[in-house]
Amino acid sequence: MAREVTAEIISIGDELLIGQTINTNAGWMGEQLALIGVRAKRVITISDDRDDILHTLAAATCDVVLITGGLGPTKDDITKHTLCDFFGTRLVRNKEVEARVVGIFQRMGRDPKDILEVNLAQADLPEACTILTNDKGTASGMWFERDGRVFVSMPGVPYEMHAIMHSGVLPRLKERFNPPTIVHRTILTTGLGESMLAKRIEAWEDSLVGEGIKLAYLPSPGIVKLRLSTYAEADGYAANERVDRKAHELAGLIPDLIFGEGDDHLEHVVGRLLKTRGQTLALAESCTGGYVSHLITSVPGSSAYYTGGVVSYANAVKMEELGIPSDMLELNGAVSQPVVEQMASGVRTALRTDWSVAYSGVAGPDGGTPDKPVGTVWIAVAGPDGVRSKLVNFPGTRDLVIERSALAGLNLLRKRLLGA
Amino acid sequence: MAREVTAEIISIGDELLIGQTINTNAGWMGEQLALIGVRAKRVITISDDRDDILHTLAAATCDVVLITGGLGPTKDDITKHTLCDFFGTRLVRNKEVEARVVGIFQRMGRDPKDILEVNLAQADLPEACTILTNDKGTASGMWFERDGRVFVSMPGVPYEMHAIMHSGVLPRLKERFNPPTIVHRTILTTGLGESMLAKRIEAWEDSLVGEGIKLAYLPSPGIVKLRLSTYAEADGYAANERVDRKAHELAGLIPDLIFGEGDDHLEHVVGRLLKTRGQTLALAESCTGGYVSHLITSVPGSSAYYTGGVVSYANAVKMEELGIPSDMLELNGAVSQPVVEQMASGVRTALRTDWSVAYSGVAGPDGGTPDKPVGTVWIAVAGPDGVRSKLVNFPGTRDLVIERSALAGLNLLRKRLLGA
Repeated sequence: MAREVTAEIISIGDELLIGQTINTNAGWMGEQLALIGVRAKRVITISDDRDDILHTLAAATCDVVLITGGLGPTKDDITKHTLCDFFGTRLVRNKEVEARVVGIFQRMGRDPKDILEVNLAQADLPEACTILTNDKGTASGMWFERDGRVFVSMPGVPYEMHAIMHSGVLPRLKERFNPPTIVHRTILTTGLGESMLAKRIEAWEDSLVGEGIKLAYLPSPGIVKLRLSTYAEADGYAANERVDRKAHELAGLIPDLIFGEGDDHLEHVVGRLLKTRGQTLALAESCTGGYVSHLITSVPGSSAYYTGGVVSYANAVKMEELGIPSDMLELNGAVSQPVVEQMASGVRTALRTDWSVAYSGVAGPDGGTPDKPVGTVWIAVAGPDGVRSKLVNFPGTRDLVIERSALAGLNLLRKRLLGA
Repeated sequence: MAREVTAEIISIGDELLIGQTINTNAGWMGEQLALIGVRAKRVITISDDRDDILHTLAAATCDVVLITGGLGPTKDDITKHTLCDFFGTRLVRNKEVEARVVGIFQRMGRDPKDILEVNLAQADLPEACTILTNDKGTASGMWFERDGRVFVSMPGVPYEMHAIMHSGVLPRLKERFNPPTIVHRTILTTGLGESMLAKRIEAWEDSLVGEGIKLAYLPSPGIVKLRLSTYAEADGYAANERVDRKAHELAGLIPDLIFGEGDDHLEHVVGRLLKTRGQTLALAESCTGGYVSHLITSVPGSSAYYTGGVVSYANAVKMEELGIPSDMLELNGAVSQPVVEQMASGVRTALRTDWSVAYSGVAGPDGGTPDKPVGTVWIAVAGPDGVRSKLVNFPGTRDLVIERSALAGLNLLRKRLLGA
């Protein structure tokens, strides 16, 4: 097996350090590198400061050093000059790049003689580098080599960087380092927390070591992703087969918890199930306040199966729009099994859908009582075969209670759609 | 003036390096540090690897080192053990923390005897550290000092980290380093893009230099925040006065665009206006699919003024729940002025509220036509003095169209509530 090829990412920009801009570039690059078998070992974010940049470049220990940011035309963009100092080279005007910069401004309707010198200076590039063409903007990519290490500098604008990575950087890195291929598989689970899940699959997890497979738990509210990864030999066939076999074993162990793979989402899974069956959905939301409807409609094309919903925040809306009898509300309170079941049936009848999900609970921070504390949520699913409901209780902030309730309800619907 | 206090942030987690999770923690911490006058100099993201963690801790050069991640209960969470090695200390079970961990699981309904040892082990903490209480979860914060540097380790779960930062870290850092005070004021605007806004306030912006005030534009979809900041002398009175005066001047220049200050949100502003007036709101959403309802109900206590809403995705729901005549739909299409105005009036009547906002548009990516391209959205506000509507057109992805439409509608409501 080829030795591991490592990379570090240096993100340059004051705006990243003070939270003005979230550094989405680094994660994207790490993901792209992983796909060609290069492991991002660290990401360093620094300000547009000459000493900080020089210090960070000198301290690099990985095979590949990807640098973004600081290539704009303004005074505070100093990356190019600092790279010249670091590599002991100088800036030279590149006629080809200059012509491209002029072309970009012309296409934007600027008269060539009105193009500013600061814009033309984007064609001044270090003599010692290989220029990586930027089709989307005026700042070129730059490829340097020193002491067996590759340094690449790219603009921080995401879509410009993406284009240079795809056309210039990734193909060259594959050719230069011939990294081992890594096979990944991410399995999505819901319904059990990280530690309980780990306990349930303990023996299976232990068996991964012998297969040379690494397991990572990636938890987020209501969801735990399990990522399997292993190095592949030659064409990757055997590695794929190993990972597939283990994924299959896992599916047999926790069929109730797995809802998808990779980048999938519960609202997409539910949407596909409804679409395949040619069935429709309505929602009745109280404590989730429209969030479930937002999730469902965040999926393009959801109008094919989502008819609509009622957000019944006030009891009057529960009574009038969803047909909850007032004595039922008085007797049980809004957060109760009979009310949530009637909400589900009511919205299903009113909107004439095959399925419905209803939520009624205490999202907090106020409104909790000793027997119905904050986080108490009743969820009901109504369908062709009747109404069923479930009581859940989630700790955490208002946002978290809403998020986790939403997912729990969609998961109940998913199971019902699958006939469980 | 006191010397500059610097910080570095170490984010630990494989998931951050491969783009599975975006590192939002680091930017948030940088922002919070800036507010107390501490400058985030660099952010380093590394994997859950003992050697990498030790190497990064040893290479720290800043006054403050904030570490997040790797404190979960599973095997791949190794931060705590590695910190023990680095500081030459050992783990000791803390009875107070153990009791809190047990309490958390009890509140979730777990029987004390069923609490796993891996969960209890969250109470094993380094002897040499000051424990920072985590009210939101089981992983405590840890405060170490060495060679004049402060090292703080916190969980990577954002809301747990936020709570520990606010209650434990930021007050202690102020006391320990007494950083120079910075006076900030953030003014929130909506309704004009960054470059057009910059042009409109150009002269005012130029006048800030003489006052020693820095201006930053912080744009996000539909909103541009303007942050004024300046160093304060002694008690900060003069600096506050300078910033107040300039903020007041700005309010006179763009009264139509400013909707709030600081951490405020449009849904909170609208909520307070409704509450003060003792008035109520209903929503009728088509293209926004429940997102506006979600925003409104994300505000604790919103049930005082929000009655509920209808998500009318299908035309049948628009007709039956909101009283849109079928010939009006046929003649004008769902995305039209008469339909959106009837949606607003219909939901206001059905839910008997003082105000209502309705949305009908093409969120995309499909469904656009030459005369109603993706991003075309009609918004109507109905109130005691009648219905008014507005046509907007936002470029961008489905998410962006939904987000910007939502804010535009809330801003229309805000202006109507203010009598504009």
